[in-house]
Amino acid sequence: MNPQSSPLLTDLYQLTMLQAYFDGGMDGVAVFEFFVRDLPPQRNFMLAAGLEQALHFLEHLHFTAGELDWLADCGHFHQDFVDSLAALRFTGEVHAMPEGTPFFPNEPILRITAPIAQAQLVESRIVNLLHLQTLIASKAARSVLAARGKLLVDFGLRRAHGAEAGLLAARACYLAGFSGSATVLAGAEFGIPLYGTMAHSYVQAHASEKTAFEHFARSHPTNTVLLIDTYNTEAAAEKVVKLAPRLKQMGARIKAVRLDSGSLSYHAIKVRRILDRGGLKETGIFCSGNLDEYAIRQLLAEGAPIDGFGVGTRLDVSADAPYLDCAYKLVEYAGKPRRKRSEGKATWPGRKQVYRSYGTDGRMERDILTLDNDAQPGTPLIQPYMLAGKRLAAAEPLEESRRRAADELARLPERLQRLGTQSPYPVAVATALGRMAKAVDRATRQ
Amino acid sequence: MNPQSSPLLTDLYQLTMLQAYFDGGMDGVAVFEFFVRDLPPQRNFMLAAGLEQALHFLEHLHFTAGELDWLADCGHFHQDFVDSLAALRFTGEVHAMPEGTPFFPNEPILRITAPIAQAQLVESRIVNLLHLQTLIASKAARSVLAARGKLLVDFGLRRAHGAEAGLLAARACYLAGFSGSATVLAGAEFGIPLYGTMAHSYVQAHASEKTAFEHFARSHPTNTVLLIDTYNTEAAAEKVVKLAPRLKQMGARIKAVRLDSGSLSYHAIKVRRILDRGGLKETGIFCSGNLDEYAIRQLLAEGAPIDGFGVGTRLDVSADAPYLDCAYKLVEYAGKPRRKRSEGKATWPGRKQVYRSYGTDGRMERDILTLDNDAQPGTPLIQPYMLAGKRLAAAEPLEESRRRAADELARLPERLQRLGTQSPYPVAVATALGRMAKAVDRATRQ
Repeated sequence: MNPQSSPLLTDLYQLTMLQAYFDGGMDGVAVFEFFVRDLPPQRNFMLAAGLEQALHFLEHLHFTAGELDWLADCGHFHQDFVDSLAALRFTGEVHAMPEGTPFFPNEPILRITAPIAQAQLVESRIVNLLHLQTLIASKAARSVLAARGKLLVDFGLRRAHGAEAGLLAARACYLAGFSGSATVLAGAEFGIPLYGTMAHSYVQAHASEKTAFEHFARSHPTNTVLLIDTYNTEAAAEKVVKLAPRLKQMGARIKAVRLDSGSLSYHAIKVRRILDRGGLKETGIFCSGNLDEYAIRQLLAEGAPIDGFGVGTRLDVSADAPYLDCAYKLVEYAGKPRRKRSEGKATWPGRKQVYRSYGTDGRMERDILTLDNDAQPGTPLIQPYMLAGKRLAAAEPLEESRRRAADELARLPERLQRLGTQSPYPVAVATALGRMAKAVDRATRQ
Repeated sequence: MNPQSSPLLTDLYQLTMLQAYFDGGMDGVAVFEFFVRDLPPQRNFMLAAGLEQALHFLEHLHFTAGELDWLADCGHFHQDFVDSLAALRFTGEVHAMPEGTPFFPNEPILRITAPIAQAQLVESRIVNLLHLQTLIASKAARSVLAARGKLLVDFGLRRAHGAEAGLLAARACYLAGFSGSATVLAGAEFGIPLYGTMAHSYVQAHASEKTAFEHFARSHPTNTVLLIDTYNTEAAAEKVVKLAPRLKQMGARIKAVRLDSGSLSYHAIKVRRILDRGGLKETGIFCSGNLDEYAIRQLLAEGAPIDGFGVGTRLDVSADAPYLDCAYKLVEYAGKPRRKRSEGKATWPGRKQVYRSYGTDGRMERDILTLDNDAQPGTPLIQPYMLAGKRLAAAEPLEESRRRAADELARLPERLQRLGTQSPYPVAVATALGRMAKAVDRATRQ
């Protein structure tokens, strides 16, 4: 069973609820919305991502014969119910914010409208998909803002949490504005530009650094980036200078050197001087090693002569905020708005829309959260993507989502483009929504 | 391309290095070891996990025709090299610590010995697999120690980082001593016991809590766990008491109620009183909502009458330490020991073994890190698992790894069983290893 596509990648309670709905003959239309309750303290905005994978999952939703057999045998379900799942497909509607849109707490970025069994079953995986990419895109956008146009490459696959996390983190980083990734499969699956040349083990496996560099340049004359910190960074930089004429004869241009340890700022300055003195002014300096947006900001503030950054672990696990407080909540069932009132977890009822207003300088000014049918000034952010289980348009090319992210990041209020925590972006709740919440409370006061 | 099995789920530099090795005719045997450099501040030990998935990956390693075509077309490689990959299989050796073994910084938990192309190519995915499960098992073991025998269920799928993270987190938690998981696919794939009944949306979709509970009990008479905090926890507990006789008539026994918000301790005490007064002494109280090992310890210290815990997000993303500082390093090539000397990242050379000694009370006393051929007192922890690309034995049943973890957690020094940071467990470096490191440094001083 393929974890990416299997409907068994869900919580048991989804299926026990489905059996209870089946037994009780409950098949009304349910409306669920996905939103984030609060920003982590280290974030000023979030960037919507993961919609494309969510749509793909919904489009292909079905149980295989093997999955149905397993369910029938697992001891939790009766045969009639399991049989009913054979025909289950997603036949509902999806409304969402386009990928690459900045958003804020309590603003839904996805709404699913479908018979309750369908809308409920998909909760776990929909949350799992939207949470991951939104988490990573929101983190990656901070490096993009901090790097002020320098080359940024995702290096995080190995410590991303599993295969899909590595692959989709590469996508989320690219969407947020990274130049590319080291993850080869992300190139194959999404057309993301790939970066990478050598590890320390490559240098260590050779009798000397010099031989290692020479072998590499011969094999990759158009992609010669040499890792120079295996033994002694400055000594290696001198070797690079000495080697350069021979490599040039072989047709190889030394595109860059990479530093991966120690004080990157200190070494970059010394290495830059060595390269310049040696006539390698066009050879760039690429840095990696425990980087994140704070380190990038610091290195650039120090004036370190660095041309690009490989950002790994801290990005791909969103180390300073490894999860978002997100939820997928029932807001309407069988035509009636619903809300949860659990302590500290109350939610807004009804199908919602977000209107965004921009100032005369083109920057975002404020959002209004309201009901779907309550028009407000500004641009409505939530758009239809699927009706009757079918997409309304072909999948959006990743380049287009990436362009949107770049445009929208540029339109963030200036203070939200900084890394430190800022006063929150204003999101007003429209009167109509507040009124509905009160009405729902009165109706369900039991 | 399946991200779990595709050899393209790797870093580009693995493949660029492979081409350089191919072009340079370098095909000596390389030895790589996987280890963790440092404990995160919030951990006193780690629990080895993920070996089974790593072995499975190595056993099935190959490039499909589609993957080779993509590589040939992607612009980074020449055709001769790509053609050579068609025959690539893993033909090497794997030595490792069994899953469920506690381990400490610098102790290798896996060693791969193979022609350098094979050993290098698999780095990214081997690290990705071992890191994830070791990370989660090490976190989960802390909840197990804190819960003192109470039921523990993994609830983290939705905020785990992607599909594989959710699935393998369930496995790692079970390995570490959890009772089971909510993730259905983990039941189907690994035989892990499954838990789960209803969400708030289920209660909200009904006209009243009472109807919701009744419907559920009718559909699941042997698995009736009722979620009682959707509106008002104590009021719902009273309803449960009133409903109980009718449900009993229907053949349903109310196994437990679940609380998911507010002060769990406060509500559990009140609910326990209501249930007891109502004759439901055998109905348990199950809690969830932002739990981790610290919250569990606190709730039990307060004497909250809680019978089981659902632990979600903070566990499945290892929120207080979302990554381990781990590495997969070349320690030998073509018969010669190697080490990296990069600032702050120096590693121990040569094939290593860990010997563990136990005190008269059966508890772990100290480890010795040394070379593979340097016998020391104690039990050697690293065992052979694969030779010539073949497993030496069938996959270890998960139940057996889980039993080992339970046994070994019980043998940890008492202080390491506490949650707070303790003085480190003693790991001595044997003279032979220290001597070899110095010899390697002398030989590679360039």
